[in-house]
Amino acid sequence: MDWKTDIAAALTRIAPHVRRTPVIEVTGLWDGGPIALKLEQMQHTGSFKARGAINTLLSQDVPQAGLVAASGGNHGAAVAWAASRLGHRAAIFVPEMAGPAKIGLIERLGADLHVVPGAYANALDAARAHEAETGAMQIHAYDAPATVMGQGTLMAEWEDQGLDADTVLIAVGGGGLIGGAMAWLDGRRNIVAVEPETSCALNAALAAGAPCDVEVSGVAANALGARRIGDICFDLAQSTGVSSVLVSDAAITEAQVLLWRELRQWVEPAGATALAALLSGAYRPAPGERVAVLVCGGNPAPDPAG
Amino acid sequence: MDWKTDIAAALTRIAPHVRRTPVIEVTGLWDGGPIALKLEQMQHTGSFKARGAINTLLSQDVPQAGLVAASGGNHGAAVAWAASRLGHRAAIFVPEMAGPAKIGLIERLGADLHVVPGAYANALDAARAHEAETGAMQIHAYDAPATVMGQGTLMAEWEDQGLDADTVLIAVGGGGLIGGAMAWLDGRRNIVAVEPETSCALNAALAAGAPCDVEVSGVAANALGARRIGDICFDLAQSTGVSSVLVSDAAITEAQVLLWRELRQWVEPAGATALAALLSGAYRPAPGERVAVLVCGGNPAPDPAG
Repeated sequence: MDWKTDIAAALTRIAPHVRRTPVIEVTGLWDGGPIALKLEQMQHTGSFKARGAINTLLSQDVPQAGLVAASGGNHGAAVAWAASRLGHRAAIFVPEMAGPAKIGLIERLGADLHVVPGAYANALDAARAHEAETGAMQIHAYDAPATVMGQGTLMAEWEDQGLDADTVLIAVGGGGLIGGAMAWLDGRRNIVAVEPETSCALNAALAAGAPCDVEVSGVAANALGARRIGDICFDLAQSTGVSSVLVSDAAITEAQVLLWRELRQWVEPAGATALAALLSGAYRPAPGERVAVLVCGGNPAPDPAG
Repeated sequence: MDWKTDIAAALTRIAPHVRRTPVIEVTGLWDGGPIALKLEQMQHTGSFKARGAINTLLSQDVPQAGLVAASGGNHGAAVAWAASRLGHRAAIFVPEMAGPAKIGLIERLGADLHVVPGAYANALDAARAHEAETGAMQIHAYDAPATVMGQGTLMAEWEDQGLDADTVLIAVGGGGLIGGAMAWLDGRRNIVAVEPETSCALNAALAAGAPCDVEVSGVAANALGARRIGDICFDLAQSTGVSSVLVSDAAITEAQVLLWRELRQWVEPAGATALAALLSGAYRPAPGERVAVLVCGGNPAPDPAG
């Protein structure tokens, strides 16, 4: 498939609906050189997930029964937002661990919200049962072509905004976002995949030579805690190449506090995970290497606005 | 004096030190058209005040005794930052009402911090005593040419970033920021001065025909609570023209919550005050009028990063 053409088409398709999120070059965040940041947490619903969701709805027929999604929070919010924007019904199944901030966000978006006891897998089971029962369309959070194309528009947009970087650091959960970036860039820039030590489905898959199940926990688990990396992402990682690094929860929290202290951006742990790789030394750029960091999500708990 | 030449020179002077803060066009924030926002709360120390402080230090001789400032918080943080960056000592006198978030910010910047019981006027008295005793240089928070020139660089920068607006809404405290904007624009765009109903030194001065003392209170008082508008600002308002509107504390809080809910920007009340004028209808653009809103400060209390 021709990813680049498909992503360019997706960008045109979703442009009337999504925000062109700002970029900024920042010095003094760490003891290395300037960092280019893209502030995707300013996207609708507070994360890049809005891109994949709206691209899916705009490129596929949606049944009368509407949509269904299982989500740790951000994908569910994105599906609820896209459905509401385009006049579809949406049933969102959220695990309790998503927490009140993300659950409140989905509620305000007007979706038919179901909070399921336990973790993501339980919410996914409930969503599948709803799909079988009603004929609603399931939108996968990361391992579907239309989702990956939508997330890929982020990197296309960043390049259009003049991205000047040798290397881009991206946090990884199930691999939709980094999959889109790899598909768009096709090896033209280095990509560093940053995962929490305790939620590292891509890292484990690269070590094993195939996607495999991992245990997930830690401060970013409700956004990055995919049990298994998506096949689309894994195949792209194999074909285009990616560096995989891991960061501790302490490093993620440090990056989260730094983004607030230095830039007044209060993001969730997942949104600070890519930056944590620089601060902790998990990724060390070569002298003169120009580095970009994607801030991908900003739905922290507790919600400061209450 | 030729403000435009002076502000252009200030922008060149301070460019190596300050951040070029991002801009974004946003739809759906309110029931009117798109709004252009500039996110100046991402400036060093979390507000535009860094511009005026560093411009002052770079354009004047600083005595051996260093600097002294009295401030409700943001100006003090900016002077502490500029002094530290350029290797000067700084004594900052802060009224208790500045609150722990702003006081903690100044402390982290390494200044010689003095928390003074009472309100801003008490801190100013203490700062003046320190100035007389030590020979330290006082930096006025808003009513000095080098300060106004520094703040004026913000509007120069915004125009360089492609600002496309008929009207710019700006929150007003003592008038340094809007003074710089009026000086730079010189009537080329409409400027709307937005003040809290309970801290409205410019509005009162325009009504009285001269700067006069007002009582100050309300949610934005520690940033916008100037007892009297600066002479520089008042004179520019008379010569270039400005629309003056007032907003309630409730409207400010509503705008503050909306900036978080829609854009994940958690700012202090003063930073949301300009937007409040649109949401509350205190300023109603004509059909087709292109509107820009300056988000000027982001040091809320409590500090979400603790």
